[in-house]
Amino acid sequence: MKGGEEEKAADFANYFCSYASLYHQKQMLTDHRRMQAYHGAIMQNRGLFAGKRVLDVGTGSGILALWCAKAGAAKVFAVEYTDMAKHARKLIEANGASDIVEVIQSSVEALQLDGPVDIIISEWMGYFLLRESMLDSVVRARDRWLAPGGLMFPSHATMYWGLVSDEEDRLAKAAEYLQSTQEWHRFKREMRQYYDCDMNVLEGVYEEEQKGYYILSSFWAELQPDQCVGQGAMIKHFDMHTCTLEDVQGVEETPFRINVEHDCRVSGFAGWFTADFRGTEANPLPVPVLLSTAPDNGYTHWGQQVFYLEVPHWVPRGGAVEGTLALTRQKENIRLYDVGVKHRRHGNSQEPNLGPMQEATYTMP
Amino acid sequence: MKGGEEEKAADFANYFCSYASLYHQKQMLTDHRRMQAYHGAIMQNRGLFAGKRVLDVGTGSGILALWCAKAGAAKVFAVEYTDMAKHARKLIEANGASDIVEVIQSSVEALQLDGPVDIIISEWMGYFLLRESMLDSVVRARDRWLAPGGLMFPSHATMYWGLVSDEEDRLAKAAEYLQSTQEWHRFKREMRQYYDCDMNVLEGVYEEEQKGYYILSSFWAELQPDQCVGQGAMIKHFDMHTCTLEDVQGVEETPFRINVEHDCRVSGFAGWFTADFRGTEANPLPVPVLLSTAPDNGYTHWGQQVFYLEVPHWVPRGGAVEGTLALTRQKENIRLYDVGVKHRRHGNSQEPNLGPMQEATYTMP
Repeated sequence: MKGGEEEKAADFANYFCSYASLYHQKQMLTDHRRMQAYHGAIMQNRGLFAGKRVLDVGTGSGILALWCAKAGAAKVFAVEYTDMAKHARKLIEANGASDIVEVIQSSVEALQLDGPVDIIISEWMGYFLLRESMLDSVVRARDRWLAPGGLMFPSHATMYWGLVSDEEDRLAKAAEYLQSTQEWHRFKREMRQYYDCDMNVLEGVYEEEQKGYYILSSFWAELQPDQCVGQGAMIKHFDMHTCTLEDVQGVEETPFRINVEHDCRVSGFAGWFTADFRGTEANPLPVPVLLSTAPDNGYTHWGQQVFYLEVPHWVPRGGAVEGTLALTRQKENIRLYDVGVKHRRHGNSQEPNLGPMQEATYTMP
Repeated sequence: MKGGEEEKAADFANYFCSYASLYHQKQMLTDHRRMQAYHGAIMQNRGLFAGKRVLDVGTGSGILALWCAKAGAAKVFAVEYTDMAKHARKLIEANGASDIVEVIQSSVEALQLDGPVDIIISEWMGYFLLRESMLDSVVRARDRWLAPGGLMFPSHATMYWGLVSDEEDRLAKAAEYLQSTQEWHRFKREMRQYYDCDMNVLEGVYEEEQKGYYILSSFWAELQPDQCVGQGAMIKHFDMHTCTLEDVQGVEETPFRINVEHDCRVSGFAGWFTADFRGTEANPLPVPVLLSTAPDNGYTHWGQQVFYLEVPHWVPRGGAVEGTLALTRQKENIRLYDVGVKHRRHGNSQEPNLGPMQEATYTMP
């Protein structure tokens, strides 16, 4: 009883959008910025891995565990919850690393090891860093299994929030929303005319549902630098060695201010992150590596999450947009977040007026 | 950690592909063949509803319950499991039927009524009739709540299996499959070259996964009559008044033979259904109605499910395709089915050769 287009989307989603599919693993394995960052962080810091015990949280295809073995680790525990574990085991074996790497199909929480590890490596980052809430598992693994003085790969992660100027995209979404609500009116007329049913009472519900989808949801984008305005504001920084389960729940209302250097229309916001491989102060990496998903850094499969405004801000040169940002886990699915934004425009020194504070809550689907 | 396109598909799927969304209800409410069949079956047989107690299983927006009230029912129990129940209640009230229609948010299995009903109505049909396995709930409702001699709307349902001749579509899927496996080879080369990882051992797994998606899955289609060959074969018939829970589990290996009237290439198979509103022999409907989702019957949101062959059959005029068909519930998700087909070509009287029996199992996603 589902429509063809929706069904196709649902099928595609259900079939491939799972870490148990090789197709999906391949997508991550062909994200070369992601791959080069991890490969570089391991291979250019081999000395740190030599003879060490390593835990790879959510190993997927097993690639990070394999590299750790190649870097000289004495033992690598590669934990994977999905059936991808079976493929990882084959891959490890075919690449001659099965005497070093032990693939364990388990949740991190149920994991049993014969002792602590020296290094925990994991590719846990989701859209806008926190989506999927996999960081919880990494923190639990660290608290349970990382030896004192042990290292986390990555060692730090930082969330950024920037301004987007792209009326073309914003208006396209707005037009889709209007078209969708317009369709309702033909539908309503037909329901009355052919089937003697007055649909008016559900009009508001429908509009709200469609607005939630087209306007109050974030979108994946690969932003070009010229679609961005000013410098992204740092919103939250995690030291992977010390952050707590409570820290990684989300982002409490955090102020931001982004200055605007050229007259422009601000169409919305964008969220992205960086992940650092630099060790600790006591034990810094000989060759630090930075993985950035910022718009000026080229394609990654994470892209950026874009949040369009219903009404754009016109901001003059020397002005700014300021406000607060909060990320809260959804009650129905803790791997997903609601993103609350309060924001207003600032004029410049000639026109120092403030716009009224506006507020919106977006779903990051 | 998901790719943009996939993520869009997943979002769209997760957001809309649920009976709790009005967008989705609207899709079903604008399927006019569906609507006209139910509306006609009720409104042209008003006499049967006058003063009666009716149960609507899975009422969704509440439209069938509303029509039953308009047809003169004394009481309509409209059962809906999702939050759509809340909207249905509003719609019923706004249309002045809340003294007749009681919307109950519940599973059918947990339902408690004050006594039996005279009529059970339900729009329970999924793709190729059985997908979604909602018929189970209707049968349980019937066994528990339908008074002796009561009527089912629809009263009968029939599954059909036909031949498709459409090399354009079949080859398009085959080409997508080849392209997807071709991409693997660039991927494999890069993994070896840049990341010192030999992926060969997973090549078979990947090919099988992609073949499952592109070849051994059925697709939604709105077939045109000229894409079909011969007459669809009846595969299974359900009398809704008597079929058992066991009957509705699936289809046991059932023989079919479809004759071919013109030389043609048979590209695959298609499955569809009809639903009848004609009552029982003892209590036939004054005005029987037929809802058909056959290819020669125009658009319905069910369309047809198409199953393409890896290698088409060439069949001469006067020949045939014969074999067996079986539908089995998937272990991981009983609402979905695996479709097993055995098939071979028959020549004609000049060339009476039989092809070898071939066998394939498709997922109906």
